[in-house]
Amino acid sequence: MRVLSNEDVEQLLTMPECIDVMEQMYADYANGQALLVPRIDNLSPSTETDAYYAFKQMGGAWPRRRVQALRINSDVITHPLVGGKMRRVKQPKANGRWVGLVFIFSSETGALMGIFPDGVMQRIRVGAANGIALKHLARGDARTLAIIGSGWQAGGQLMAALVARPFERVHIFSPSAENRNAFAAEAQARHSGIDIRAADSAEKCVTGADVVMAATSSLVRVLDPAWLKPGMHLSCIKSQEVDQALLDGCDQVVVHVTAQPKQYDNIMPNTPNVTSEHKVGWWNAPGNRFAEYPDLAQLVAGKTPGRGKQEDITCFVNNVGVGLQFAAVGALVLDKAAAAGFGHELPDDWFSETVHP
Amino acid sequence: MRVLSNEDVEQLLTMPECIDVMEQMYADYANGQALLVPRIDNLSPSTETDAYYAFKQMGGAWPRRRVQALRINSDVITHPLVGGKMRRVKQPKANGRWVGLVFIFSSETGALMGIFPDGVMQRIRVGAANGIALKHLARGDARTLAIIGSGWQAGGQLMAALVARPFERVHIFSPSAENRNAFAAEAQARHSGIDIRAADSAEKCVTGADVVMAATSSLVRVLDPAWLKPGMHLSCIKSQEVDQALLDGCDQVVVHVTAQPKQYDNIMPNTPNVTSEHKVGWWNAPGNRFAEYPDLAQLVAGKTPGRGKQEDITCFVNNVGVGLQFAAVGALVLDKAAAAGFGHELPDDWFSETVHP
Repeated sequence: MRVLSNEDVEQLLTMPECIDVMEQMYADYANGQALLVPRIDNLSPSTETDAYYAFKQMGGAWPRRRVQALRINSDVITHPLVGGKMRRVKQPKANGRWVGLVFIFSSETGALMGIFPDGVMQRIRVGAANGIALKHLARGDARTLAIIGSGWQAGGQLMAALVARPFERVHIFSPSAENRNAFAAEAQARHSGIDIRAADSAEKCVTGADVVMAATSSLVRVLDPAWLKPGMHLSCIKSQEVDQALLDGCDQVVVHVTAQPKQYDNIMPNTPNVTSEHKVGWWNAPGNRFAEYPDLAQLVAGKTPGRGKQEDITCFVNNVGVGLQFAAVGALVLDKAAAAGFGHELPDDWFSETVHP
Repeated sequence: MRVLSNEDVEQLLTMPECIDVMEQMYADYANGQALLVPRIDNLSPSTETDAYYAFKQMGGAWPRRRVQALRINSDVITHPLVGGKMRRVKQPKANGRWVGLVFIFSSETGALMGIFPDGVMQRIRVGAANGIALKHLARGDARTLAIIGSGWQAGGQLMAALVARPFERVHIFSPSAENRNAFAAEAQARHSGIDIRAADSAEKCVTGADVVMAATSSLVRVLDPAWLKPGMHLSCIKSQEVDQALLDGCDQVVVHVTAQPKQYDNIMPNTPNVTSEHKVGWWNAPGNRFAEYPDLAQLVAGKTPGRGKQEDITCFVNNVGVGLQFAAVGALVLDKAAAAGFGHELPDDWFSETVHP
């Protein structure tokens, strides 16, 4: 049983490998050869008056790689007012740290094979999903990329986009000049052959872009229908960054998962602050077309076509993550960790037993 | 983060303490102060042609003790024909061992506090639940106990029964003379003040018994309505050991959980052998009264009465386990392990992170 750190995961995983293994997983899932374990969010009161405790579980089984993944998040959440607006804040109460873990089991032996934090893999798999969609939906000659957002997720989007297409120009916009300039400078230092610049407005950022990627924590629409141009591909990392009006302006829309991967919320009576968690988004509201769009697995498996005409406008909505991504990328990282001797090995007997219920 | 073994759990836990902490948990659950996480069984093909892989997850949050429990079972299962009958066998493929684990998290900080195998605790909590029911339902002057079964679970039933009442005579029956004699001899050696004997038929075993406990792996009825006598209390550890005819002969029936704690089976297409897993039991069939019976939490909380008249016949049906039992007993065992310095302590930072998704 191997315990890896986020640093181990970061060193071991490359984006091209993640994209490869996730494509294989999506194709299997589309063909009924992988099992999605539904997500359940369990909410109960925490210690402080206005805090609640959220225990989230999701997972997946991927027989091809003989793995079962379980990913959990164990969060103390408050909703403080910041500048008059309620914000959802995961409190780092575990000695100043957060708790999100991935457990990988062997479906051949049952054994627990590895445990590692979810943070680094979480970003890479979000990037990889959008990179896979870009590969199938963007024009082959796309060379100019616009990224809206300059945070943790934006970096993953850039990594994945550069694997999918040989972009020559990258524009970055986020509301904070300091953040977007820092992001652009850091990215430029990593990729000397590409012209990477911060833009001082979203409109300037997307002007001339072949691909526009939103990677923000916004709860309101980020991608503006006025930006749509023939031949453009767009993507986002959450449903709130787009809306039905934007999607109606596109010729082809693919969503990450249409099957409801979040089964339900399981809530203890009198848990504080949970109602604001459960607003109905536009994608659940009457009259939207969300359920009609094909999903990424169908796109990868060829059950729905990739880009049609050069001038089509395409959009990928990464509406929600799924535990199967951790099965695919987790199997890969554990194989590489074993080969390279990364992490802490603990006795397997600590995590198995001589009796069974 | 503390890793305990089954041996640690066995040394640390006493049945009286388990009964106490579980009674407190049931009372809280009845009053909406504990959260049951539904069980999901995820089934997919394993490596061998006729084997399947079952990943079971269940859990619960108990704010009073600031814990969230997650219990998983990671099993490779086959259905071999043994003596012409299909048997469900959990294969010990993990280096000759099985894999069932309990994870205990703090709902105050989010931190993973402990991991231990589920086997020993599983037996103790089944025993404790039946002991709690016995305490509330059996006659105060019950002194003769009959146990049908002589396996792993039967030992837990005896331990719990002796906490609930000062039994003076215990009769054991199981079909194998060797097994029942060994069980009786071992139990007699432990409890010198009690007359403990094996009986050579089920009828002789239950004759004169004030309390009859079934603790078998039988898939057909074990407790016979012909055995019912005024003033008797009966119990079982699975629904198959009783049927509606037996329960109709009782004056008062309490079940462990009527709320459906097993949410559903999540099954990959073409998983072998799963159909025999999912037979409709009598408790799901039309015309049964199962859903009308009060549950153990209501009994403990005083929301349904305990034994009425001395001559009433009472029965407790421990139909299914729940993850909240692991929250209650897990919190107890971890507190005791910390105080006594049991187990292996691992760095908390291995199981937390400085980034969050």
